Amino acid sequence: MYARLAGGAPAPAHGRSEGRPANGERRGGRGPRGRAQARRPRSMTNPPLQHRDTVANPDIAVIPPVTDPDVVRVIPLGGVEEVGKNMLAVETADDILIFDAGFQFVSEENDAPGINYILPNTQYLEQNRDKIRGLVITHGHLDHIGGIPFLMERLGNPPIYTRYLTSLMILKRQEEFPHLPKVNMHLVEPGQRIKLGTTYIKPFPVTHSIPDSMGISVETKYGNIVISGDLKLDHEDGVPSKTEQEVWGTIGKDNNILFIADSTNAEKTGFSIPEMRVHTNIEEIIRSVKGRLIIGTFASQFARMTHIIAICEKLGKKVVTEGRSIKTNIEIAQKAGILTVQKDTIIPVQEIDNYPADRIVVISTGAQGEEFAALMRIATKQHKFIALGERDTIMLSSSVIPGNELSVQKLKDNLYRRGAQIIHYRSSDVHSTGHGNSGELVWMNHQVHPRFFMPAYGYHSMIRCHAYAVEEAGFPKENIIIADNGLVVDIKNGTELNIHKEKAPTEIMMVDGFTVGMRQEVVIRDRQSLAQDGMFVIIATLNIKTGKLRKSPDIISRGFVYLRESQALLSEARTLIKRTVEKSTENMQPINLDFVKDQLTDTVTGFLLQRTNKTPMVIPVLIGI
Amino acid sequence: MYARLAGGAPAPAHGRSEGRPANGERRGGRGPRGRAQARRPRSMTNPPLQHRDTVANPDIAVIPPVTDPDVVRVIPLGGVEEVGKNMLAVETADDILIFDAGFQFVSEENDAPGINYILPNTQYLEQNRDKIRGLVITHGHLDHIGGIPFLMERLGNPPIYTRYLTSLMILKRQEEFPHLPKVNMHLVEPGQRIKLGTTYIKPFPVTHSIPDSMGISVETKYGNIVISGDLKLDHEDGVPSKTEQEVWGTIGKDNNILFIADSTNAEKTGFSIPEMRVHTNIEEIIRSVKGRLIIGTFASQFARMTHIIAICEKLGKKVVTEGRSIKTNIEIAQKAGILTVQKDTIIPVQEIDNYPADRIVVISTGAQGEEFAALMRIATKQHKFIALGERDTIMLSSSVIPGNELSVQKLKDNLYRRGAQIIHYRSSDVHSTGHGNSGELVWMNHQVHPRFFMPAYGYHSMIRCHAYAVEEAGFPKENIIIADNGLVVDIKNGTELNIHKEKAPTEIMMVDGFTVGMRQEVVIRDRQSLAQDGMFVIIATLNIKTGKLRKSPDIISRGFVYLRESQALLSEARTLIKRTVEKSTENMQPINLDFVKDQLTDTVTGFLLQRTNKTPMVIPVLIGI
Repeated sequence: MYARLAGGAPAPAHGRSEGRPANGERRGGRGPRGRAQARRPRSMTNPPLQHRDTVANPDIAVIPPVTDPDVVRVIPLGGVEEVGKNMLAVETADDILIFDAGFQFVSEENDAPGINYILPNTQYLEQNRDKIRGLVITHGHLDHIGGIPFLMERLGNPPIYTRYLTSLMILKRQEEFPHLPKVNMHLVEPGQRIKLGTTYIKPFPVTHSIPDSMGISVETKYGNIVISGDLKLDHEDGVPSKTEQEVWGTIGKDNNILFIADSTNAEKTGFSIPEMRVHTNIEEIIRSVKGRLIIGTFASQFARMTHIIAICEKLGKKVVTEGRSIKTNIEIAQKAGILTVQKDTIIPVQEIDNYPADRIVVISTGAQGEEFAALMRIATKQHKFIALGERDTIMLSSSVIPGNELSVQKLKDNLYRRGAQIIHYRSSDVHSTGHGNSGELVWMNHQVHPRFFMPAYGYHSMIRCHAYAVEEAGFPKENIIIADNGLVVDIKNGTELNIHKEKAPTEIMMVDGFTVGMRQEVVIRDRQSLAQDGMFVIIATLNIKTGKLRKSPDIISRGFVYLRESQALLSEARTLIKRTVEKSTENMQPINLDFVKDQLTDTVTGFLLQRTNKTPMVIPVLIGI
Repeated sequence: MYARLAGGAPAPAHGRSEGRPANGERRGGRGPRGRAQARRPRSMTNPPLQHRDTVANPDIAVIPPVTDPDVVRVIPLGGVEEVGKNMLAVETADDILIFDAGFQFVSEENDAPGINYILPNTQYLEQNRDKIRGLVITHGHLDHIGGIPFLMERLGNPPIYTRYLTSLMILKRQEEFPHLPKVNMHLVEPGQRIKLGTTYIKPFPVTHSIPDSMGISVETKYGNIVISGDLKLDHEDGVPSKTEQEVWGTIGKDNNILFIADSTNAEKTGFSIPEMRVHTNIEEIIRSVKGRLIIGTFASQFARMTHIIAICEKLGKKVVTEGRSIKTNIEIAQKAGILTVQKDTIIPVQEIDNYPADRIVVISTGAQGEEFAALMRIATKQHKFIALGERDTIMLSSSVIPGNELSVQKLKDNLYRRGAQIIHYRSSDVHSTGHGNSGELVWMNHQVHPRFFMPAYGYHSMIRCHAYAVEEAGFPKENIIIADNGLVVDIKNGTELNIHKEKAPTEIMMVDGFTVGMRQEVVIRDRQSLAQDGMFVIIATLNIKTGKLRKSPDIISRGFVYLRESQALLSEARTLIKRTVEKSTENMQPINLDFVKDQLTDTVTGFLLQRTNKTPMVIPVLIGI
């Protein structure tokens, strides 16, 4: 007598595999888990990093690197088909410079269950790693720095060039990845001219919702490539400030062959609300509110947080900070010298009741309705020290990120249940975007006066609207480059545009726990399927000689139907399984277990669909004895 | 020698079960699957209906029915904590009348994977079934009629009272559930006074985005209960039309003890955009557009669809209808006599190229970015007869439903990729809501002049804002009832308010394939867990005497890691499993397989977490031989 196992065979053999060959170097890193994962917090104290190096995929299209000294190449590797995962490459015959290394958050709507982040594809850069002279980071938001821990080694750990606050934010994140090599950080400032390899770059200051944001002019043989980074204009009633006029006026004096600019708000017309007006409104609210004021905002809104603290000091109010990212960023802001806080301004939350209500301002994370963030805990009476009441006012000083609408609705409902007053960015100007509207974008375009223009940073619709706006303002349509991720754009002699037919690899990379890799279709598809209908594992032992079942088969099912109420269904299924196995093995010698398995899968799937209108993943395990 | 199976034991025994006793009558029905399920279409041609009748949960709080003739009771059973699943009950000593039986759509953000719809809980009504005199339906939208097929039998198949168009929509849906008993349909019209049991109701016409919408006055001993249904006001610059003034003026002449009104847009101030302005704008666009015009809208926007067809006839344009729900609703509109279409106006899509582009208007479903709807197929070049080009214009004549933002973004991106022009409700007034803003709501409230007021139909924040608006306009705060689902409100003598401490059962009911039942926490939680991290089934055969494994254990894993690239991990896992089994059975006689299973689960879960930062569902199956 012998035992033989089929069906539950080594997993790669399962029928759903449509795997592709391992490609690219793989590297894992630990990162804070995205929103979708928030529901199941797990210890992050000391997981080891996974390093997996596999050979690069030999099948991918190889685009020859630039060798012609008269050619400059630009490749948007991420960020032109989405808001997030920004990365641009500029290549000359001698050098490759990389601009930003962001990631994209995954929301429920992305339908990529279990995935933490999405990264730009860096295979083109990996293939030409020896030409990489540096990674330039425009500012400290995660859609521009979030990919660094996952991508640096793939890029050969190039030196990073950025301004001080951004450098602190990058280094702070690196602390979470202690196994990675130390970052080679170079601080730069507007006004400098910095050599990377043989190429000079000139940073210039831009207005964004985080200090130390910069754009960059890259000097190439026939003129400059101007990269905006994320930005808006500081303006009053549509008239850009003196500083903006000077900065952009100076850029305009150069010969600019290409302008690459932020499209995030290009679908909106005119000029965006100036942050100054938001500051004035917030100051007025802090001044006039009767009870406690709880401000929900993004930790990344540095300018606003520092402004709120300054107002509180002026008005003799105490500040409570809630949420790790806000505490961290306030520390960073102090370290960077952009925030000086008096000794007693920020008080521990435990002392909140030692002060009259109208002297308390709480700055809190969680304005997107994140389940475990401070604001939601306050709203749902889970907070240890802050009990909301009718005299409290909540100010939601942030917009709703697409995909978070229902979470924010839930947050608002809970806040209203406590009887609190809510001031929302839709009802008052208590939030302003960090991205310019089309009026601002057109103005900048005029100033830069480039030969070619590539709208970037945004979904395709935003990029199109940016192009339409600029075109309408007189920019020649044929000189506008509408790019997808991976588009390879060569400019020769500063005048000839050559767009390659082959694109750089663009398959998205995902961070999935410690695994960093190409989109793993098989895994994601299985997760989607399991999420919809669950699974149904059949375990049957049969006499390998006669094909008779040795006992009634066992069933393991999860996520399919509520089993306690489905005993009749399970019992019918067992009978069907027995009949199917014994019928399909009749007169079969020797017994082909794979054939029996296929029969079982088909029969049971059909039965369950017909009875429940669900198609759980049916997995038969046959044990021949 | 004997074989023994543990671990994969009968599924209900699994450790995650936190089942509750079966409760309530269960009934299954086939319905179109919600958006979340769109990705995997399955045949719906002829599935049988499941009828499961189980005993009601004996543990639920029993609220005594009304016996005092001076008391009238109101229970909002659904729709006051969400937009959707609307259902209200009005009860006197003699009768229960039910108003609406809607469902709520499930979006990705609801985090209820695999669930088709959410229904109101009807247990209170089931317990008092013999008092139910009728189900009154205010209008034909799914958040008011969608629950009918799933709930009618639970309610004892009461007669339905509604207007003609609504009746056609209900009957059309019933066709999909051929096993259900025939509906006992009574047509009503404004101006009538209809007796249900001993209670009279008076329907009145209201303005909404679908014709034949009505509100209802319920005559009770001490005065009327006025139920608004969904509505807005027909108005010009904030002055309600003559018809509105007459309708609401008439209602105001009655003694109204309670007004229950729509809160959906109560967070918005002033008056909503009148549909008339939208009609004017759409007419102007249809008139002036140069190429083809493709209008994406909701099939439920009857008024708009009929208006568009009328304009096309006036301008000599041909209409192509795309999407089953639009075709169905146009048929229903014709049958209801609210739309007369000339013989050749609507042409088959195959003939679209027989006419000049500027004579073609397409009315299409899919403005929410639904994956398989007509508009998305057109946008992604999947449509057999409509190839988009630069001369085409798309008008998205609908707002974005919260939770659909990324789908709509994807749709827009794809439309822009085809070079088409897009006119969006945000950039022009080509869509208007069916729900009044707070200015309209306050006006109606003044007209009705009730003693008590209950804002309904909306999320809690909307209900609160409705209450605040009415209060600010002078309504006494103490007479406003802020309800949650299941709140039991008794009004005695028309003046005394008595809100019960016990609520009617509110646990949500779900449609999950053919299963209709209370929220099945175990199943949903398993699906969420499987979606995040997948599963990891271990199958090991061991010598039940010695505890030694008979061979290397087998592993079935789905949705966890990409197995082709994880052979080292699997191999380590097998070694760990072997060691764990043999160590934990050492000196154990007889072998306790459940103990070994627990050891395995803990050890393997910890190992996988530490190596991958994922926690798949680990299920050990031990086969003792």
